[in-house]
Amino acid sequence: MDNRMPRVVIIGAGFGGLWVARALAGAPVAVILIDKNNYHLFQPLLYQVATAALAPPDIVYPVRTILRGQTNLTFRMAEVTAADLNTRQLSTTAGTIDYDYLIVAAGGETNFFGMKSVERYGFGLKNIDDVLAIRNHILRLFELAAQEANAAARRAMLTFIIVGGGPTGVESAGALAELVYLVMPKDYPGIDYEEARIILLEASNRLLTGLPDDLGTATVKMLEKKRVEVRFGNPVADFDGEVVTLKDGEAIPARTLIWAAGIRAAALADKLGVKQAGLGRLVIKPTLQLPEYPEVMVIGDAAYLEAEGQPLPMVAPVATQQAQTAVNNIRRLVQGQEPEEFIYKNPGVLATIGRNAAVAHMGKWQFKGFFAWLLWLVIHIVRLIGFRNRIVVLINWAWDYFFFDRAVRVIMLKPGKVKKE
Amino acid sequence: MDNRMPRVVIIGAGFGGLWVARALAGAPVAVILIDKNNYHLFQPLLYQVATAALAPPDIVYPVRTILRGQTNLTFRMAEVTAADLNTRQLSTTAGTIDYDYLIVAAGGETNFFGMKSVERYGFGLKNIDDVLAIRNHILRLFELAAQEANAAARRAMLTFIIVGGGPTGVESAGALAELVYLVMPKDYPGIDYEEARIILLEASNRLLTGLPDDLGTATVKMLEKKRVEVRFGNPVADFDGEVVTLKDGEAIPARTLIWAAGIRAAALADKLGVKQAGLGRLVIKPTLQLPEYPEVMVIGDAAYLEAEGQPLPMVAPVATQQAQTAVNNIRRLVQGQEPEEFIYKNPGVLATIGRNAAVAHMGKWQFKGFFAWLLWLVIHIVRLIGFRNRIVVLINWAWDYFFFDRAVRVIMLKPGKVKKE
Repeated sequence: MDNRMPRVVIIGAGFGGLWVARALAGAPVAVILIDKNNYHLFQPLLYQVATAALAPPDIVYPVRTILRGQTNLTFRMAEVTAADLNTRQLSTTAGTIDYDYLIVAAGGETNFFGMKSVERYGFGLKNIDDVLAIRNHILRLFELAAQEANAAARRAMLTFIIVGGGPTGVESAGALAELVYLVMPKDYPGIDYEEARIILLEASNRLLTGLPDDLGTATVKMLEKKRVEVRFGNPVADFDGEVVTLKDGEAIPARTLIWAAGIRAAALADKLGVKQAGLGRLVIKPTLQLPEYPEVMVIGDAAYLEAEGQPLPMVAPVATQQAQTAVNNIRRLVQGQEPEEFIYKNPGVLATIGRNAAVAHMGKWQFKGFFAWLLWLVIHIVRLIGFRNRIVVLINWAWDYFFFDRAVRVIMLKPGKVKKE
Repeated sequence: MDNRMPRVVIIGAGFGGLWVARALAGAPVAVILIDKNNYHLFQPLLYQVATAALAPPDIVYPVRTILRGQTNLTFRMAEVTAADLNTRQLSTTAGTIDYDYLIVAAGGETNFFGMKSVERYGFGLKNIDDVLAIRNHILRLFELAAQEANAAARRAMLTFIIVGGGPTGVESAGALAELVYLVMPKDYPGIDYEEARIILLEASNRLLTGLPDDLGTATVKMLEKKRVEVRFGNPVADFDGEVVTLKDGEAIPARTLIWAAGIRAAALADKLGVKQAGLGRLVIKPTLQLPEYPEVMVIGDAAYLEAEGQPLPMVAPVATQQAQTAVNNIRRLVQGQEPEEFIYKNPGVLATIGRNAAVAHMGKWQFKGFFAWLLWLVIHIVRLIGFRNRIVVLINWAWDYFFFDRAVRVIMLKPGKVKKE
């Protein structure tokens, strides 16, 4: 690597960091990309691993393979443990790394808002470990329910609570309903599916905030048609692994709580010693720079920036669009030019509820049903990284669609590695 | 379930137990199949998961799905903790289960022959946990080697010892050689592959016992062409995670030892209180029955039976063929007839060394090279359970073949779950 070239260090190989790394191919900088995993994770499909539709390798891709042949780039699988912005030095599990420019694209993590019991007994939906644990837990409960003589115990095993009415919660609830009511009866014909419940809890009074009202209502109807109970305005207060307690005191016996009700900036954001806004996000200038450290830019979930008076959402399109601005600004700063400001182009909302069912709101257009579902499918296949992953995911989806099946109904973790059962 | 029908309990859903369960479809018996996992594992391809060619879901299939619609069968995911052959009762993690006829098809487990250090720091090759651990360990070592300044430390990271010259050891060594020398250079161009070594250790003086001499020699040549060092007559004495010590005192710095040098009957065999032969196998009559318990039959790796003065090998064809005899004998016993004796038809030996390279010995025929490799491929695809698994495996193999790639080069376990690094 040419030591005279400015060194750009990128923390995180998610939608933000990876896009920056790619766009810096051929730029007159030396790039070091750091991630704690050796793969890029396609987070939008995590819930499909949780519901046994896809296997983990289908939605991840090795970072080194993606960036093969990019000669100005080095990848380091390491965790960043501390950062000294004054000396421009990172401490990592693979030694210290100096930078001239730093891109913090550390992403987000599940936010349990301090509810320890929910964190302990509930499941997040943010990484491969989370969703493998969910898959194993749910499939194991069916094995247990099939041999449980006590009706109350059986009902608790077959009651699944999903918390959070954003896209992740809605998509998870829909996929779980199809798994429970369409697929499992073939393998567990002895179970009484009247005993099964899937409950989607949303603390506010609507699903998919940001959608027009009628699309939100349509989403509720589509979920209810799939036998999901949608309940508003009564948030979770406690969960002990056996009973979910709601804020108004209602107790629902349930062995499964999936938490899709919030994320916050990754823990690294707390270690930089700079100003943070809500959810731990780092306050940046419209140029994406930290106010006091112009050579440091923050993008994606870990960044706090407002547009039209609202904080930008913690979603992939913000990260990938900010990546492009960050790259432009690095090139500008290297050449001694003024950085440009980030302008977000909202691509809209698109969420699938299941077979032939989705809602979409894009600019002036809004639609639902089969066409929205097809659009969702095409967009997700195109955005997946890796030709082989695309083929395998397509085959799995086609199979599930035509045969009402799920590919990956195998329980793979040892009992010691799962949550309370 | 009809309680007047005799109850047949099968322990194990491997090649023995699953084949028995299938063949009892429609028979006038009530069948309970017990396995500690909810899936059938296609063990012959485990080494391909270890070497990042396939993902675990590709080589497993849910037992309940395989046996869908088989109305006289119940599946129990449970571990058998004890068996009282006198009262005909099993203790399991899912309660006690009585039987009229018992089929013990518990399979085998890795046999470290009491070498605690090898068991602790080395890797077995018998189940999904084993091979996932190997995959993660090897890929992690490449990440470490790519940033290691010390040449000796780097060499130890890139030295892979495989112990055992049977089909599993040979196939693993070939697959690992292709991963290291053909695939990894694309992702880790900075590594000096002259520092890498793959060593296959065989305690005897030949590979693939049972093959004619010239095929054994051809196997050695094919492995050496792939840069595998094959060494005979110097078994492993110790391994501390950093240095492998051989019997003659030679020390080889290496961070990876894969143990394919032996299996023994599953631990359940030790709990039955009946006569065991070498490797813990249960001594049975030619009718597969236990001498003192004619209602108990043992098949597969856990059974000890001789043919032509030699113990039957612990391989899948013995298990599947014995399954058929066991089913015949259950039908005969139920009808009050004399049971038949098992006669083994040896299908021969078939092992692949890698791209276009395999050896086969079947009856009068013996051949090697491309045709043997094609035969290997077809047989393994046909024997895989599940149409979708077949398609996905075929796609992965075709991709790897044409692009010199491997599908699943992602590190997925947390550091705490891997062996010493």
